[in-house]
Amino acid sequence: MTLQQISSFAAGEWITPDAGARTIASAITGEAFATAGNSSLDVQGMLDYARTVGGPALRKMTFHERAKMIKALANALGAQKQVLYDLSFNTGAIQSDHMIDIDGGIGTMFVFASKGRREMPDGHVYLDGDLEQLSRNGTFLGQHVCTPLQGVAVHINAFNFPVWGMLEKLAPTLLAGVPAIVKPATNSCYVTELAVKIMLDAGILPPGALQLVSGGLGDMLDHLGMQDVVSFTGSANTALMLRSNPVILNNAVRFVAEQDSLNASILGPDAEPGTPEFDLFIKEVSREMTAKAGQKCTAIRRIIASETTTQAVIEALSARLAKITIGDPRLDTTRMGALVSNGQKQDVLEKAAILGQEAERVFGDPENFDVQGADKDKGAFLPPMLFHCADPDNAQRVHDTEAFGPVSTVMGYRDLDHAIALANRGQGSLVTSVITHDPTVARDVVLGSGAYHGRIYINNRDSMKESTGHGSPLPHMVHGGPGRAGGGEEMGGVRGVKHYMQRTAIQGSPEMLTAIGERWVPGTPEIKATAHPFTRKYGELSIGETLNTASRTVTLDDIELFAKFTGDTFYAHMDDEAAKRNPFFPGRVAHGYLLLSFAAGLFVEPNEGPVLANTGLDNLRFMKPVRAGDSIKVRLSVKKKTQRTDEYGEVRWHVTLTNQDDEMVAEYELLTMNAY
Amino acid sequence: MTLQQISSFAAGEWITPDAGARTIASAITGEAFATAGNSSLDVQGMLDYARTVGGPALRKMTFHERAKMIKALANALGAQKQVLYDLSFNTGAIQSDHMIDIDGGIGTMFVFASKGRREMPDGHVYLDGDLEQLSRNGTFLGQHVCTPLQGVAVHINAFNFPVWGMLEKLAPTLLAGVPAIVKPATNSCYVTELAVKIMLDAGILPPGALQLVSGGLGDMLDHLGMQDVVSFTGSANTALMLRSNPVILNNAVRFVAEQDSLNASILGPDAEPGTPEFDLFIKEVSREMTAKAGQKCTAIRRIIASETTTQAVIEALSARLAKITIGDPRLDTTRMGALVSNGQKQDVLEKAAILGQEAERVFGDPENFDVQGADKDKGAFLPPMLFHCADPDNAQRVHDTEAFGPVSTVMGYRDLDHAIALANRGQGSLVTSVITHDPTVARDVVLGSGAYHGRIYINNRDSMKESTGHGSPLPHMVHGGPGRAGGGEEMGGVRGVKHYMQRTAIQGSPEMLTAIGERWVPGTPEIKATAHPFTRKYGELSIGETLNTASRTVTLDDIELFAKFTGDTFYAHMDDEAAKRNPFFPGRVAHGYLLLSFAAGLFVEPNEGPVLANTGLDNLRFMKPVRAGDSIKVRLSVKKKTQRTDEYGEVRWHVTLTNQDDEMVAEYELLTMNAY
Repeated sequence: MTLQQISSFAAGEWITPDAGARTIASAITGEAFATAGNSSLDVQGMLDYARTVGGPALRKMTFHERAKMIKALANALGAQKQVLYDLSFNTGAIQSDHMIDIDGGIGTMFVFASKGRREMPDGHVYLDGDLEQLSRNGTFLGQHVCTPLQGVAVHINAFNFPVWGMLEKLAPTLLAGVPAIVKPATNSCYVTELAVKIMLDAGILPPGALQLVSGGLGDMLDHLGMQDVVSFTGSANTALMLRSNPVILNNAVRFVAEQDSLNASILGPDAEPGTPEFDLFIKEVSREMTAKAGQKCTAIRRIIASETTTQAVIEALSARLAKITIGDPRLDTTRMGALVSNGQKQDVLEKAAILGQEAERVFGDPENFDVQGADKDKGAFLPPMLFHCADPDNAQRVHDTEAFGPVSTVMGYRDLDHAIALANRGQGSLVTSVITHDPTVARDVVLGSGAYHGRIYINNRDSMKESTGHGSPLPHMVHGGPGRAGGGEEMGGVRGVKHYMQRTAIQGSPEMLTAIGERWVPGTPEIKATAHPFTRKYGELSIGETLNTASRTVTLDDIELFAKFTGDTFYAHMDDEAAKRNPFFPGRVAHGYLLLSFAAGLFVEPNEGPVLANTGLDNLRFMKPVRAGDSIKVRLSVKKKTQRTDEYGEVRWHVTLTNQDDEMVAEYELLTMNAY
Repeated sequence: MTLQQISSFAAGEWITPDAGARTIASAITGEAFATAGNSSLDVQGMLDYARTVGGPALRKMTFHERAKMIKALANALGAQKQVLYDLSFNTGAIQSDHMIDIDGGIGTMFVFASKGRREMPDGHVYLDGDLEQLSRNGTFLGQHVCTPLQGVAVHINAFNFPVWGMLEKLAPTLLAGVPAIVKPATNSCYVTELAVKIMLDAGILPPGALQLVSGGLGDMLDHLGMQDVVSFTGSANTALMLRSNPVILNNAVRFVAEQDSLNASILGPDAEPGTPEFDLFIKEVSREMTAKAGQKCTAIRRIIASETTTQAVIEALSARLAKITIGDPRLDTTRMGALVSNGQKQDVLEKAAILGQEAERVFGDPENFDVQGADKDKGAFLPPMLFHCADPDNAQRVHDTEAFGPVSTVMGYRDLDHAIALANRGQGSLVTSVITHDPTVARDVVLGSGAYHGRIYINNRDSMKESTGHGSPLPHMVHGGPGRAGGGEEMGGVRGVKHYMQRTAIQGSPEMLTAIGERWVPGTPEIKATAHPFTRKYGELSIGETLNTASRTVTLDDIELFAKFTGDTFYAHMDDEAAKRNPFFPGRVAHGYLLLSFAAGLFVEPNEGPVLANTGLDNLRFMKPVRAGDSIKVRLSVKKKTQRTDEYGEVRWHVTLTNQDDEMVAEYELLTMNAY
């Protein structure tokens, strides 16, 4: 049989394996079917290509342009899902595992594309947080910004999710404007190679934006510098080796790690047998143990239930696990496939033996289980195995040994504090879940255990229908955890994009900050509008274009009429004596909503034009009361523009209301939708 | 002469130096006057004390309580400024250096105290970012939260700012709720010791919140775990040694470093001699070279001017530097004091000699300069020294050798891109400044150079009066930088507090997220108000307490009246045919401000009561147009409460307007000030 050649993609060329390549075996049959690796790969050339070709091309694009590119990549992958599924069965994954890996990876791309358009600007500089007032008169201000790193991101991924593992790192990297070199684990790199081919063939990416190493990385890490990032998913041992690299340490190369984790799931004290939460717990634990044959970094390794419930948990869980059909992943009836390799199977058995020193195996016998449609002795099959640790306080291995397969340990707690202490014994995990219907239980777990976990997943009867699963990292939420989990963070929306950008504190005058951030900062010289800005199309408006209105006097009759009309007869508007007793008012004052309404009357352009609608208002603050006889006028400046569709864009206006003494009465931001 | 004994403060006890202690010499006289260090310091005991006594006490407090504690500490230090000044002269610092170190440190505490109260909750859980919609019906949501680490922060500081260096790390640490062990550089630890004594004597801190190591740290770092943080300021060599510690690497201990940095200042191409910017540049560079005798991690080491301007820069700078009087720091006429020690002086001379291989010394002769009021040969005095590098492209040492004293190098650029490339040759710095009056220059520098710098400081004629100085890290802005600068970040307001907290992604039902975050999440079961909530005092209101109002029909007469009254005659409210041509409207619709005003009429309680004022409104979005004949009703729920003074607090209400079909018409948050 000819072995399939799994290539690398380096500096624009596909590089086939050479003599030193490693063979890759099918998880189902144990037979070699592919080969990957090239010992003469020009890693320095790949880095140079990314830095000098890919990076500059990506940085020329805006965040929105890159977001659209990511969406197009996701669509290209989505159109070829079936060929990815077909190939991926060889890794031992069943169809529902593909949904996590392939559909999950594509979905992650879509979320980043969407967040890029909704939460990042259609420009080159991301504003991090608000303006900082550094001076009394506002002539010197601060603003944090993020700009793309000018190096390359090296992504080193684990074998378990050859598609999702690549895409969850690639989406934020590309959105940031940074080129990537992807290095999947060799065991399943053939699936990643296919996904890379699909993306490259779609012709969407600029040259140099994406390269692939199938097989070993060589000494690539020794060539990294301060503008590069390493993002690693895998074992703690490998992570430690990589992060100890003298070049990485010496150049302060960013290193993001997501590694071993003894994730726990806590059954709340309220969730006794017979409650919907108890049943939910059994279902979630069983799913986490068997999905992807337990080869998930977020899988539940420690099942923490009250001491009085552990027996019921073991029984219910064993009953559920007994129904899991193991076999050829291609069969519809298979509920759990194979591990990725016989090496991995061996590793899991060794770790299970270590757990066996402190815990009793109460379900699953690796020497005696059924496999349908495949040769049990040739493929990397294992049954789910449940352990029970009777004395978790005096145990150590159950808290630090990750058997990366369908293996988990039940342990009992005396009270919630004890449950929290047990969860924390993992010394840092990706996720802990709590199944409870009691909000105080949820809050106590967060306060006691939050510092030890990257994610806390809470579920109960109210949320179970829409809940996303203990083990599913979502692009919206950070994925990673402290300590044993590696101390890294990925995803979490824009947070994940920032790993590939540098945050810089900018200080300067309002005019400088306006130019840098492409949004108007108060104090920047106004641009006099040549016509009413509401008569100008989206594309014609400049940042800083300003309208100053005439003024209008607010009369006591106005206040009376407004109160009667709206029903807002709050005493501060109606009763001078009562208003004077209020610490904020000098006497009867105009309604805030009256001022807003009059302001609109002052600045609005009544005729049909490019402004289609006032869609919202932000950050309104009333600063000084307006009394009868005072007058108000409005200044309205274009603060920021954001394209929304092909037909219109959002304009954010900075609005100030001042009185006859030029004192600020109110300040806010107004949103309008404007036609192109 | 008896040497002053500089003690450590460990587990509640002052520990005096022992036989192995180091002597400390006066910077002015070179004579030993103090001794510090105790080789039998119980470092494990200190860690245990912080973790088991200090941490739990701090975590019991809310963010606001800790902010008030920090303010009280700042006040205690402020009351003793003079004794700190008096002692600090021994480090070679002059009065204006004390303003940076002592007043600057105290000011940093005040800013963190203020930000803690304004930007963090009066509770135990900090909400990071917004709710994430993870489900269609909103029964399962996400929210990132930060909770304090349960370990200890070890702060290792540089000699140059014995007070500010401690306080800029201590303020965010205490605000986070984490105890600190402070280890100042031995050369100037006597000033830190005094500041620690003042804070401890004030009786404000809970036991275990603050400990001090004067002298060596022993093997403390070998005892750190995944809940601890090391925050280091000092040389790149020491940083590399510390970050390579196997325990730190293995336990993923957080390590924040701020180290060597070849900061640059760029004179914009527009800022020719004769412009206000040219003069400003000379002034800022001169100040940065001589403040604290150039021993500032943010000092300007590379002066980047256009090739045609370098000669003018050298001349103007030399003339200004010639006026700097060097001498005894206690003399009012002294403009530059001594370096911290003769060892430091020797180090600077060695580094200057290295620079001399690539650059010519054009001002300042270490063999020939005047010192007033002190013995030039005994104290650690040096003159400012200016170098000129004629070929910066082919130079390396001027870009990587930090002479940590009054030393800087002028180099010329051909165009702005070249200036940016030279600035980036530093391979990561804390700060680069640009003196320009041209916004496009400022923007180009940020785009080209942002990825290489932690801070970019822009100054010109508009901002110079209120500008804070190239070299001054501000508590509002991040301080740190990539690559050579250490890859760390400190301060930056709440960003700096997060270094001492764990971010955790929380997923769950609205009710669970409400309980955890102590703010109401839509979808949480309403708490029926027993009386109109505006009649209830601040302290009586519960999160989630809800008012549902009656409904009101909006008539065409209402729309007509409102338009006439306010002057807002936008066609969508006035002309049915025109409104129908608008893509957002089905025909004539009510004004958004009319809806807001009617809503207030529906929910307001007219009589005097605890609600004192409506102070603002946030995140208003109009979701569905309201036509004549539609009716609206309001739901108003207590979202969040924040104490503001002893007399009143701010209540944030979540408000929804729905129509007769229960469709959401508008949603916003209303702010009121409520009496206790």
